[in-house]
Amino acid sequence: MIKLHDIAEGVKKGQLRALAKAITLVESRNIDHSVAATTLLDELLPASGNSIRLGISGVPGAGKSTIIEALGLHLTGLGHKVAVLAVDPTSQLSGGSILGDKTRMEALSRDPNAFIRPSPSGDTLGGVARKTRETMLVCEAAGYDVIIVETVGVGQSEITVASMVDFFMLLQLPGAGDELQGIKKGVMEIADAIFINKAEGDNRPKAELARQQYLNALHLLKPKSTNWQVPVRLCSALHKQGIAEAWQTVHDFTQAMKASGEFEQKRRLQATDWMWTLTMNDLKDLFMHDRNVAALLTQMQQAVAQGITTPGAASRRLIEVFKRGH
Amino acid sequence: MIKLHDIAEGVKKGQLRALAKAITLVESRNIDHSVAATTLLDELLPASGNSIRLGISGVPGAGKSTIIEALGLHLTGLGHKVAVLAVDPTSQLSGGSILGDKTRMEALSRDPNAFIRPSPSGDTLGGVARKTRETMLVCEAAGYDVIIVETVGVGQSEITVASMVDFFMLLQLPGAGDELQGIKKGVMEIADAIFINKAEGDNRPKAELARQQYLNALHLLKPKSTNWQVPVRLCSALHKQGIAEAWQTVHDFTQAMKASGEFEQKRRLQATDWMWTLTMNDLKDLFMHDRNVAALLTQMQQAVAQGITTPGAASRRLIEVFKRGH
Ligand SMILES: Nc1nc2c(ncn2[C@@H]2O[C@H](COP(=O)(O)OP(=O)(O)OP(=O)(O)O)[C@@H](O)[C@H]2O)c(=O)[nH]1
Ligand SMILES: Nc1nc2c(ncn2[C@@H]2O[C@H](COP(=O)(O)OP(=O)(O)OP(=O)(O)O)[C@@H](O)[C@H]2O)c(=O)[nH]1
Ligand SMILES: [Mg+2]
Ligand SMILES: [Mg+2]
Repeated sequence: MIKLHDIAEGVKKGQLRALAKAITLVESRNIDHSVAATTLLDELLPASGNSIRLGISGVPGAGKSTIIEALGLHLTGLGHKVAVLAVDPTSQLSGGSILGDKTRMEALSRDPNAFIRPSPSGDTLGGVARKTRETMLVCEAAGYDVIIVETVGVGQSEITVASMVDFFMLLQLPGAGDELQGIKKGVMEIADAIFINKAEGDNRPKAELARQQYLNALHLLKPKSTNWQVPVRLCSALHKQGIAEAWQTVHDFTQAMKASGEFEQKRRLQATDWMWTLTMNDLKDLFMHDRNVAALLTQMQQAVAQGITTPGAASRRLIEVFKRGH
Repeated sequence: MIKLHDIAEGVKKGQLRALAKAITLVESRNIDHSVAATTLLDELLPASGNSIRLGISGVPGAGKSTIIEALGLHLTGLGHKVAVLAVDPTSQLSGGSILGDKTRMEALSRDPNAFIRPSPSGDTLGGVARKTRETMLVCEAAGYDVIIVETVGVGQSEITVASMVDFFMLLQLPGAGDELQGIKKGVMEIADAIFINKAEGDNRPKAELARQQYLNALHLLKPKSTNWQVPVRLCSALHKQGIAEAWQTVHDFTQAMKASGEFEQKRRLQATDWMWTLTMNDLKDLFMHDRNVAALLTQMQQAVAQGITTPGAASRRLIEVFKRGH
């Protein structure tokens, strides 16, 4: 029997062993652990939420880990406690980015006021995201007041990360062949700020050009909030240039959002949206693992693809066998 | 007792009375009718599919109905049988666009080789779309070999229509204040061709300019198929200019898609996607109308919004009560 209350108390005191235990519980795939984790999270919930949640995305090699290390050290220097989490959609393929991230954030990983947690492995992005989101709450309860979530800018993972943070930063490269990579993927629409990294030395003019192009592209988009204009800034994570300015941007943003009430409103919406996502996800699982549904599924899908039955008829039959089985 | 087999036979012979009866059945909200409709559709299915399915979208007043009338008359002149359907997300508010559309397509509505069906009323876009999609099959079984679906370019309805047609045409206006309206809404990504309407007289230079801007914008987008380059053309529906060219475009497109196998592949994918959409929709309905779930729902949503319980815990409780109730 795990003493949940003891773990919760330990977490709230900021004890690293309790924090590790809590996160292990949250990340576990064991079904009993999952019930325990729910109880634990409910106990930690009142102590959570007092943080700034920051998402950082960008193509592989954009410099996300490097800027997180620089920003993290800057923040611990200012007296903050920083937790770094990762949502890595490729982790189940590559076996996790643990080593990669820890070695790339070497100085930060030795900082007593920083906590780095690589992405857990998981079958689905939804599974990884669920755990990341819950780990975020545990870290907050443990007193970390800045949470940084890193994700690779590929497909759905950015949208998922944006839905769990207060501020979403897009890290871009100067003149990476196609300066408007962002627009295509709809990522620019969710960015609260764009930073063009590696903007040092010879790269500077290219970075300036990219900045102009992003600003032009931003004009085509409907602003997310009337109280915030998405800035495009240059930085060099490697040379620690633009790091303080990045934090200033986050600060300005949260001030504006808190003043207008959007900050709280967004968090409430994120929480209820997330409840729906989880519920619909579990409902779908329940359906797909239903014995009768599973027995009929492939057959129906093929019949529809071959034009032997209509999508409507196939769907009705699947729902019928599900109802009957319950 | 409705003689389903008789209706099916009548439809296949192209009898208008049988067609009307079949569509009434498909559109009915009565639950017994819904079962009958499923049976009828399965009987008609083998006779369906032999058509070109065309979606036309654009802002209110772009000239969709006018171009459909012109194109429809052009097509019946060539010996085609044309069915015009509508997906109108506003129909449940405005009480339907029946009168509007019939008066705007007066000549076509008197053409014996054309069939115009305004959008049925419905609670949800999903409901309207389901009926439109099934009505399309009935029309095909009745020998209509060109199906045109009109939808207003607002929000989700365009995506829905694009998911049920072979060819999706975006109708735009020259210099409508913001020439890049399309890009913002992600509609350009689903267009197979863009037509700039009302490109006559004084409007011509503005239309040419808009054309260039759309072409530039298209370069930013990833092509949907390597076998098709989205054209941007000018037309004047009112003066019947560019109508034959529009049909030529549809023809070129379908030729290219059929040659590459994408035509059939897309239809198969649309059918199975639609099966999933319907199934998930009905599953959600089943869940939301479950007595135990309904009793707990508001409470859980509020608890999550107020930070009293976590999204994960709330979701687990909702799924638990659903399982228990079945
Ligand atoms: N010149 C230059 N190199 C940089 C800068 N920031 C990061 N790099 C280098 O770019 C490479 C990739 O940096 P990372 O921080 O690992 O990039 P990442 O975005 O985290 O990459 P993934 O985690 O693999 O997606 C490393 O070799 C960094 O040293 C910079 O500002 N200037
Ligand atoms: N000058 C000019 N007017 C046109 C042209 N095409 C359509 N119109 C006019 O534009 C108005 C709107 O045309 P509709 O065809 O009803 O437009 P719609 O896109 O179907 O509009 P909704 O169904 O209300 O969304 C009508 O007054 C048409 O006569 C054109 O090529 N040139
Ligand atoms: Mg990294
Ligand atoms: Mg119209």
